[in-house]
Amino acid sequence: MSEVLIVGSVAYDGLKTPYGSLERTLGGAATYSSLAASLFAPVKMVGVVGDDFKDADLKMLGRHGINTELVTKEKGKTFYWKGYYENDMAVAHTVKIDLGVFERFNPRITGRSRNIPFVFLAAIHPDLQLNVLQQMIKPKFVVLDTRDLWINITKPALIKVLKKTDLAVVNDQEIRLLTGEMHLLKGARALQKMGPKIVIVKKGEHGAMMFGPGWTFLSPAVPLDYVVDPTGAGDTFAGAFIGYLAKYGKINEQLLKQAVIAGNLVASFTVQGFGTKTISALNKAKLKKRAGEYHKFASIPKLKI
Amino acid sequence: MSEVLIVGSVAYDGLKTPYGSLERTLGGAATYSSLAASLFAPVKMVGVVGDDFKDADLKMLGRHGINTELVTKEKGKTFYWKGYYENDMAVAHTVKIDLGVFERFNPRITGRSRNIPFVFLAAIHPDLQLNVLQQMIKPKFVVLDTRDLWINITKPALIKVLKKTDLAVVNDQEIRLLTGEMHLLKGARALQKMGPKIVIVKKGEHGAMMFGPGWTFLSPAVPLDYVVDPTGAGDTFAGAFIGYLAKYGKINEQLLKQAVIAGNLVASFTVQGFGTKTISALNKAKLKKRAGEYHKFASIPKLKI
Repeated sequence: MSEVLIVGSVAYDGLKTPYGSLERTLGGAATYSSLAASLFAPVKMVGVVGDDFKDADLKMLGRHGINTELVTKEKGKTFYWKGYYENDMAVAHTVKIDLGVFERFNPRITGRSRNIPFVFLAAIHPDLQLNVLQQMIKPKFVVLDTRDLWINITKPALIKVLKKTDLAVVNDQEIRLLTGEMHLLKGARALQKMGPKIVIVKKGEHGAMMFGPGWTFLSPAVPLDYVVDPTGAGDTFAGAFIGYLAKYGKINEQLLKQAVIAGNLVASFTVQGFGTKTISALNKAKLKKRAGEYHKFASIPKLKI
Repeated sequence: MSEVLIVGSVAYDGLKTPYGSLERTLGGAATYSSLAASLFAPVKMVGVVGDDFKDADLKMLGRHGINTELVTKEKGKTFYWKGYYENDMAVAHTVKIDLGVFERFNPRITGRSRNIPFVFLAAIHPDLQLNVLQQMIKPKFVVLDTRDLWINITKPALIKVLKKTDLAVVNDQEIRLLTGEMHLLKGARALQKMGPKIVIVKKGEHGAMMFGPGWTFLSPAVPLDYVVDPTGAGDTFAGAFIGYLAKYGKINEQLLKQAVIAGNLVASFTVQGFGTKTISALNKAKLKKRAGEYHKFASIPKLKI
């Protein structure tokens, strides 16, 4: 089993969906992805929080086997995001962003953490992502997430860091912005030429498609009776994905496919509770049960033609 | 092996897509679905054409083992549809409809055709669909397609015919219109209560989801490098689906799942040529090859948690 290093935002969120609301609840990409990865492998989380950050939240992360030594506490406020979702929960509407201490986030990877083989760079400024990679000593597998904002305003920096990543996680809009290709398959191939040998396209309720060297794979999303809050679904997916790989400590086509399924399965829990409520209460027994249901749903019988 | 009876429109289409155009080419729901079903089982096609209908088109259908005895030729014009697609090929824009002889379509099922066990009712007026069913003697399996138009203007008649069908093929918009449920899974369950024990929701480029009694199944769409004309994709899907079942002459969960995959596979050919060009040139060797590729793409490995 290998360790995972996860770099990204730690936040307090104000969430509102058609099913309720929750104020100043623990969130952020590094939080969701670390909780998800911790189901499979030990996690070292890298981030910054303000002096308003609650000890109880740090303790909760610790209980999941997440090492928060590299989450620094600085004078000021923790990153705050307030947003809401309407009936189409694929779209988040931002009401307020207060970067707080996150504005001066300057991740420092020290000591043995520099040798961690599996690295997930959540969607932060690409200069910071590159900075983290430059501090790492020969990482085995680097997964990068990004968002439309960084593609729009810092594309040259993003292109630099893409060259150093093994796998990029994007959605269909991001792949179009990045490559200029309208067609998903062509876009994925164009992105592979920019650096990452493997590309995952998250398609929300339609699942995730993975493009490897010479192969393509689709894992449908878990069909859900209800979704109460989609916040953190993408980060959960990426965290569970890299955590699953770290558990085995190696990379091959079969493990990559299993890891995508793990990502879909774990994310299906996140969206069924507010904030980190269900992901932080998830255990292997619940996950195993859902995996069994998923296999019945998505297993493809052989055709006799 | 059983026979399939297919009732629906036979048309000449004027097609325009970003990749070209084709005028007065053979089309119609019964045409696409019969060509697709004929890959697996003998087909009896029921329809009406005008005196402008070309012998060459009837001969082409005959070469595919499609019996057109119940396709009557009437004085007047064959149903004509002219439409175009823009870059989002999920949406067909209708430019012109000339119903011609189709306006007086009155399907007559005679003789031994009344005993055909597998029946596909393409999206025609629900009164005609009911009329056909009343002429059939104890059909084994009835598949019904419909469209928003019939849901909007003839819902009571549609509700009547739904009671007599085994399986309904719909898209997400139609299921909402039919059941008033915004949530796909709830909508499918509501539709099952209206008659069909099995519901298939076509999700275009995202594949097809099937809801059986107590189980759910998803078959992703075949990932395609290019699509030139989406006309007839849904009809092809339904035709291949019922043809596959007729080949085995029985219904069970495993065969239904295989039939959905067959539908997706055959439809993936239809959209790669204009009109019926690729579907009419399809053979088992090509289909087998694509089925092999599809299994690599969509097969779900087991997770070790």
